[in-house]
This record gives sequence, structure tokens and C-alpha cells, in this order.
Amino acid sequence: MVGKVFENGFALDLLPSTDDYHEGVIVENLEITAPMAPEVFGARLRASISEWKRKGKKGVWIKFPLELANLVESAIKEGFRYHHAEPSYLMMTYWIPQSPCMLPANASHRVRVGAIVLNDKREVLVVQEKSGILRGRGLWKIPTGMVDKDEDIEAAATREVKEETGIDTEFKDILLFRQSHKAFFDKSELFFLCILRPLSFDIQKQDLEIEAAQWLSLEEFAAQPFVQQNDLCECITDLCLARANHDYSRFVPVVTPARSIPDKGLQYVYLNAKTLLRGESF
Amino acid sequence: MVGKVFENGFALDLLPSTDDYHEGVIVENLEITAPMAPEVFGARLRASISEWKRKGKKGVWIKFPLELANLVESAIKEGFRYHHAEPSYLMMTYWIPQSPCMLPANASHRVRVGAIVLNDKREVLVVQEKSGILRGRGLWKIPTGMVDKDEDIEAAATREVKEETGIDTEFKDILLFRQSHKAFFDKSELFFLCILRPLSFDIQKQDLEIEAAQWLSLEEFAAQPFVQQNDLCECITDLCLARANHDYSRFVPVVTPARSIPDKGLQYVYLNAKTLLRGESF
Repeated sequence: MVGKVFENGFALDLLPSTDDYHEGVIVENLEITAPMAPEVFGARLRASISEWKRKGKKGVWIKFPLELANLVESAIKEGFRYHHAEPSYLMMTYWIPQSPCMLPANASHRVRVGAIVLNDKREVLVVQEKSGILRGRGLWKIPTGMVDKDEDIEAAATREVKEETGIDTEFKDILLFRQSHKAFFDKSELFFLCILRPLSFDIQKQDLEIEAAQWLSLEEFAAQPFVQQNDLCECITDLCLARANHDYSRFVPVVTPARSIPDKGLQYVYLNAKTLLRGESF
Repeated sequence: MVGKVFENGFALDLLPSTDDYHEGVIVENLEITAPMAPEVFGARLRASISEWKRKGKKGVWIKFPLELANLVESAIKEGFRYHHAEPSYLMMTYWIPQSPCMLPANASHRVRVGAIVLNDKREVLVVQEKSGILRGRGLWKIPTGMVDKDEDIEAAATREVKEETGIDTEFKDILLFRQSHKAFFDKSELFFLCILRPLSFDIQKQDLEIEAAQWLSLEEFAAQPFVQQNDLCECITDLCLARANHDYSRFVPVVTPARSIPDKGLQYVYLNAKTLLRGESF
């Protein structure tokens, strides 16, 4: 939508916008319109808000690329607030109606994986990290790391193991997951503990982040004071032992074509292994 | 850390910063220092970067509250990029070394819940929504919604059911979860499908978002064309039936005191019910 309104006798272009599925509008590609002084942008924004209000629109989204940071203050003056940001852009929102704001919140969680790589000798692949809160404490821990943008949980687990230790692995399943809050600034975290089978055994540690890496018996891993003082670590070793005895049923990923969302390709659904083994659904 | 450096013969206060656990620095509470013109901020930032570099610091975090949006452009000029934003502030980062940036990425996922509320007659609680991509298509769907900031998955599931239908429920377990990408702008989504037991039966639908709500037999729910064309919906009904027959083992939440992180209170760990029933660990 591009239109004009008149303010003080001058023709003012409305901001280019598209409608969304929730009775709102999205302003994008501002950088390809002519450069604007902050005052001009402010006037166009005010005029556009009036027009959107007249049409009964609710939420307004404006995407500011890095090079238009000079317009952000004008948007704040018109009542806009930050919604989310990525390295190259800032998304701001405004709720037009008097009713409570119904705009969806920003991404709230980061997702982290831990990788338990168990070999046939019941040894677990462990590392010591060079930085972070655990450095210099001699603690042997499993490889862990953040799930990258657009990365599947199982891909993240195999990637982290390969990066930190050089070991190739095959993803088996998810043993457990944990939700915790205020994990990273104001954000929450979902931590997925994965089981992987090693496909190679010769450790080549990464120098940047990793101080040392080795295969350690599950018993020695469990005997570390840090592990014994930490519920989750204790739980990990208990579950590892349960799994080694084949009596723990767990979540496994199933690839499903995203039929209802044709452009989104494949998706992973995690569900209980026992259902699969019975050959039900999927 | 607050210090002074000299630029062109003038004493220049360094920006106040604290060290983090990863050889980096965090600049916060800029709003409580004296107001600064963007040029003064730019000069102080340049001087501070030189000083941090001299000390071998790596990542720099600066938090800009809404009222300091006028300083954002200066930070971009010095090489800073957006990291994340919440309604009232924008976090920017800069990586000092020549090596690849090791700063953790922004929160990457939003978390959504779906709530299957099954009564003793094998009827499922369903709603029709007023807005969104499914509106006006006559589809009966289960209550779904976003997990709020700092909210536990199980709390989100019971809250959404209560908000949309007025029904009180008790959370039972997580049936499955799905990870999908590009679900919301550039962000990914984790969708947790939860099973709840109804504690009340008289539906009081919410008017703002919900067109209609009712109890529907599992068979009628499953017979809807939309459900049959959608892998996840199909899977939901299959798993519901499996669960109704008590032969699906699932993830249940266990509360564990976060002993290793004393100020974080309780955490939920989700693990397989069978392990619990055997009385292992926890």
C-alpha cells in the first residue's frame, strides 16, 4: 500500500506497507525508498498511523536496517517500541487500538545441546573448556553448545562434538530436556541432552575453546565432585546407565514433510521411540 | 571500571564497564551517567575500545535503553552491530580481536504449546479462532499459544486452556515436540504438544480471540479434512489414541532445585515417565 495524505497543504507519501494475517501492517524495504530526514520520516509515519487507524488496523511492524538507525528515535517519539533485533536490523512495533496489545512476543529461548557420546567400553567423550564459568577447575564435561540459527537439534549435537573433539558421530536420541529462565540476559533456555554413537575414536581437539579432551569411564565421570553436587549431571549419569541397560525409552526424531507449509521443507518431530517400534502412525 | 584517557589534550572519561566470564566487557546503566551528545559518546567509545583492546578484552556488550536511542548511530559507526532487543532496550555488540567472533547468538526460538484436554468420554476440547491463518475455515483445533517470558511449558499449557475456554486443567505430560524454522520472521519454533486432564467442564469462551469452543469426539476431530492433510494433526490423534490405551510412554516434568545456580530457584527437567516409575534417580 502506498498512498498520499496532505499535511499543512503538502502532499506526504504514506509509508509503503503490506497487510499481515492478523489485521496488522508490515513496513519493510524502507532502505530502497528515497533517503529520508528523521523529521520527514516522523511526519510520514504520523500520517500513515492515522490512515491505518482509519482502516481498523491493529499492530504495526517496521523493520529498520542498520543504515536507517537515524530514524529509530522518530519512531520512538511516535510510540513505537523495540520488538527484536538481529545483527543487521531492528524490528519495532506499535499497537494502534486501545485494547491490550496482542502482538506476539520476541523469541524467548535460546536452545543448547549437550552430547553424550558413549563408546562400547562404557566410556564417555569429555572435554575441559578454556573459557567460561567452569574453566580452570579441572572439570571433565560433555561437549555442549548453542543450536545455530535454523539448525536442527540433532545436527547441532553432531556438529558440536565434531568441532570440539574431531569425533564423527551418529545421533541416536534425546535423553531429556530442561527449561531454565534468566539463562542469558533476560532470556530462557531449553537444554536438550542427546545420546550419540561414535563413528570414529581418534580425538583431535579444537584449540580455540578446548583445553583437553579424552574418553573417560562413566564411573570416573560420575565421581567428579562437581557432578555429584549438580542434579542434572547426576541425572545424566543415572540415565546413561539406565540406557546402557536398554531400559530407558526415549524421544527420537522423525522427519516429516511439512505438507501444510509447502515452502518450509522437512521438519523434525520428536516422539517416543516405543510408538515407532510398534509401527504406529508415521 | 571507570578511567580517563586523553584525546587532543582533553581528558575523556572511559565508559563504565564490568568484566564478564568470557574475557569481555559489559557497558550498562549508561542512562544514569550524565547525558551525552552522540559525538561525545562516540569519542568516549573509541577511547574505551582502545583501552579494552590494550587489556586483551574480546567481546563488548552495550545496553541502550529506549531513551538513549540517539547514541545508537554512533555505536554503529564504531563497528557495533545489533545483538538483541526487548521493548525497552537494545543490546549491541562488538568483537575486538581479529579472530572469528565467538559471542553467543541471540535467542533463536520461540516456544509454543498445544494443549490436548481429553475428558473421560474421549472428547477433546477444541476451539475456532477469530484471527490468524486458520480463521473462517470452520476448523476445530486444540488451544495453542506462545510460552510467555519466564513461563514454564506446563504453566503455559494450563494458562492457554483457561484463557481460551475457561476450563481448569491439570498438566499431565508432553506427548511430543517439534522444531521448525522460519516460523516467525527469521526465528525458529519449538512446539510442545501437552496432555492435560480437565478439572472443570463448563466452557466459558474468551471473546477477543475465540469464535467458538466445544468438546468434540476424538473421531470427529480426526475426521476433519485439515487434520487428515496435516502430518502433525494426524500424529496427534494417533498418539492420543495410543495414550488412551495406556501404551505410550512420555516425557514428564520433574522439579529439581537448581543447586549449582543458587539464585535461580527451581527448574523443570523433562524425562521419561518409565524411569520415574521405577524410582530411579530423582
